[in-house]
Amino acid sequence: MTELLQEQQTEKSELLQKAIQAKQASAVLAKSTTKQKNNALRTISTHLLEEQAYILEENSKDVEAGRQNGMSESLVDRLQLDPLRLKDMADALIQLTKLADPVGEVLEKWERPNGLTMSKIRVPLGVVGMIYEARPNVTVDASSLCLKTGNAVVLRGSSTAIHSNKAIVSVIRGALEKTDLPVESVQLLEDTSREAASHMFKLNQYLDVLIPRGGAKLIQTVVQNSTVPVLETGAGNCHIYIDETADLKMAIAIALNAKTQRPSVCNSCESILVHKAWAEKHLPQLLAALQEQQVKIHGDQEVQKLSPNVIPAVEGDWGTEYLGLEVALKTVDGIGEAIDHINTYGTKHSEAIISSNSENVDQFFMEIDAAAVYHNASTRFTDGFEFGFGAEIGISTQKLHARGPMGLPALTSTKYIVRGNGQIK
Amino acid sequence: MTELLQEQQTEKSELLQKAIQAKQASAVLAKSTTKQKNNALRTISTHLLEEQAYILEENSKDVEAGRQNGMSESLVDRLQLDPLRLKDMADALIQLTKLADPVGEVLEKWERPNGLTMSKIRVPLGVVGMIYEARPNVTVDASSLCLKTGNAVVLRGSSTAIHSNKAIVSVIRGALEKTDLPVESVQLLEDTSREAASHMFKLNQYLDVLIPRGGAKLIQTVVQNSTVPVLETGAGNCHIYIDETADLKMAIAIALNAKTQRPSVCNSCESILVHKAWAEKHLPQLLAALQEQQVKIHGDQEVQKLSPNVIPAVEGDWGTEYLGLEVALKTVDGIGEAIDHINTYGTKHSEAIISSNSENVDQFFMEIDAAAVYHNASTRFTDGFEFGFGAEIGISTQKLHARGPMGLPALTSTKYIVRGNGQIK
Repeated sequence: MTELLQEQQTEKSELLQKAIQAKQASAVLAKSTTKQKNNALRTISTHLLEEQAYILEENSKDVEAGRQNGMSESLVDRLQLDPLRLKDMADALIQLTKLADPVGEVLEKWERPNGLTMSKIRVPLGVVGMIYEARPNVTVDASSLCLKTGNAVVLRGSSTAIHSNKAIVSVIRGALEKTDLPVESVQLLEDTSREAASHMFKLNQYLDVLIPRGGAKLIQTVVQNSTVPVLETGAGNCHIYIDETADLKMAIAIALNAKTQRPSVCNSCESILVHKAWAEKHLPQLLAALQEQQVKIHGDQEVQKLSPNVIPAVEGDWGTEYLGLEVALKTVDGIGEAIDHINTYGTKHSEAIISSNSENVDQFFMEIDAAAVYHNASTRFTDGFEFGFGAEIGISTQKLHARGPMGLPALTSTKYIVRGNGQIK
Repeated sequence: MTELLQEQQTEKSELLQKAIQAKQASAVLAKSTTKQKNNALRTISTHLLEEQAYILEENSKDVEAGRQNGMSESLVDRLQLDPLRLKDMADALIQLTKLADPVGEVLEKWERPNGLTMSKIRVPLGVVGMIYEARPNVTVDASSLCLKTGNAVVLRGSSTAIHSNKAIVSVIRGALEKTDLPVESVQLLEDTSREAASHMFKLNQYLDVLIPRGGAKLIQTVVQNSTVPVLETGAGNCHIYIDETADLKMAIAIALNAKTQRPSVCNSCESILVHKAWAEKHLPQLLAALQEQQVKIHGDQEVQKLSPNVIPAVEGDWGTEYLGLEVALKTVDGIGEAIDHINTYGTKHSEAIISSNSENVDQFFMEIDAAAVYHNASTRFTDGFEFGFGAEIGISTQKLHARGPMGLPALTSTKYIVRGNGQIK
């Protein structure tokens, strides 16, 4: 017991010490120039490639341990690095140098009748806390996005990726030593216990924001327990609504794409709603197309009538994120029922209507409460790169600060600069 | 015990029931036109004046109870309404109709190489929870700002203002009945227990944001306990730094104004930092000017040498919000020490430098971490009206979503609208 307590004390000190170092580094980062930051990103890119053998060796320890502990192959796939993946990570750093630096941007400028001149400029957030699962690429990704936006970062990855993360962070810090940016800008918690994470949730004095990246459970744990402001990302129970006037070929192509192109991601489709009049004519074709792609269908009674291979849908299906080749399929009486259903069961992520009726499209755009609403396009486009942001920190499903795909500006705050010549109130 | 549990059940039901009603109303509000919303604000304004006698009578019950329970005169003053104050509230509603409606504003619009057209538009947040102290004017203020921005509101005021709040909300709802907006848009919790507030902190399903308005303790309770995203407002430990080259008259005028013009508010000055070279020449004049206004001075050793009436400052003084005629006064070696001190003890609210050295001003603007930084002007200007926003929900001291004085746009979120013609990924 005493040993446990002592251990917890040490754990606490590691977090506190690193958070304080990050806070101090953030003050230097905030005044670094775009040139200094881009130079650092290029240096890190070079070092990642140069230290490839070391990183891959350390990564193989995690992979081996994962396999021994019965980690699923899909998780091993996310964990495992190879020369190509490292090359992609190094390239992404170079791409990042080409994006505009949001810090210092003047968002508004105006003068008051009393002669005060006001401007609102973008500034870094300060220190970003990242809590994520066993994906070592997030270590590079989060560090580089934070550096580009002048933020220090405290990384808390999974214990199952600890060798990889330690190796990558030591390479990043080795690179930073050769630049004008403080080495202390990037901090990795080696203690991956729950206790350390819980302490991180309450570190308002040093952390300006927490960003969880991973499954719904991880994200909810952070949202439910953190007093540090959270940028919530993730969960997507996305719908495709096929309206009465939907073009047959387009509707099937979009539904298939949204469901099957990459079923494990948050912007893939989990429920298809079909207008009854469209269903009467075309539902068999839609079902055949889905079933040809091995998609299991959980259908309502109307759907069941049309196919023997349909699993009867239960209430729980409307709110399920299958994240695989399964879909819930429901017929609706019209746009009103579709909107009600989506606003009831959706996660406010991405929602699409396939329709040739512009009034219905307008109603869908107005009444659906979601980060992104689509007409005649796949929900799979909700992504910082597809939106043209050049980088993505995640897809926000909250309404404050940032909503939808988050590019670099989501990692900034603002500051009002007021110039006077003696004004008093 | 059983009775208590039953009572809690009832309390819970009141909150849940009203939150659900607010959520339903928010869907109607989100599609209300600017004309409908302004019409509602005008109707409420008229009703507040027509029902003046009723509101004042109910208010007098709170005032009487407050006095009987030993409420301080300054709190009674905040609680008490009179015909003039009601007239001001009614006028503010009319002013609000003249401000631009942020909802529907197109913030960005662009096209992607694949032909998708994207736009980012402002939308209401949904349901706003307000938790505030015994100021009935906040009841009108919060309701009207929320209605203007298409949000429903759940109000949780103080038990000491419950008669006033019930009267005001019944008048507002009576007015709404005559308009196109749902009566359920404005909800008042009659249960003012801590339990009901605690339950409100966790109502993520129905509340999109919580805004606490009141003292530091109330705000911290909400920040520390809420899983609903919070817009943190309030605490201000603001500094005036008088640099070596500061103009004598200007420095004294600004320091006096920032300290004494309204000492009880968050943007008033709590600490004055003085460059040693300036202090050597001018400190006695600054001390005399402050003491003439009955300001108690907590000074460091240098300051103590110059005046027998200075209270020796202790470490705690640098972080104290006096909110009265008291100030901490410290001499510093230069701009670096001033910045370090402010970033250590400040609350990131409003900070001013008085200087004729433009390099120092630039350094102050760059390195001070605060919502608003001033050159040669009083910190008292940090206020939505002084900034020209026409309305203010509060002054945010957090970095996410909104920072500094918050106008109507702070009560909105955004939504991406994507139009395609069959695009798939």
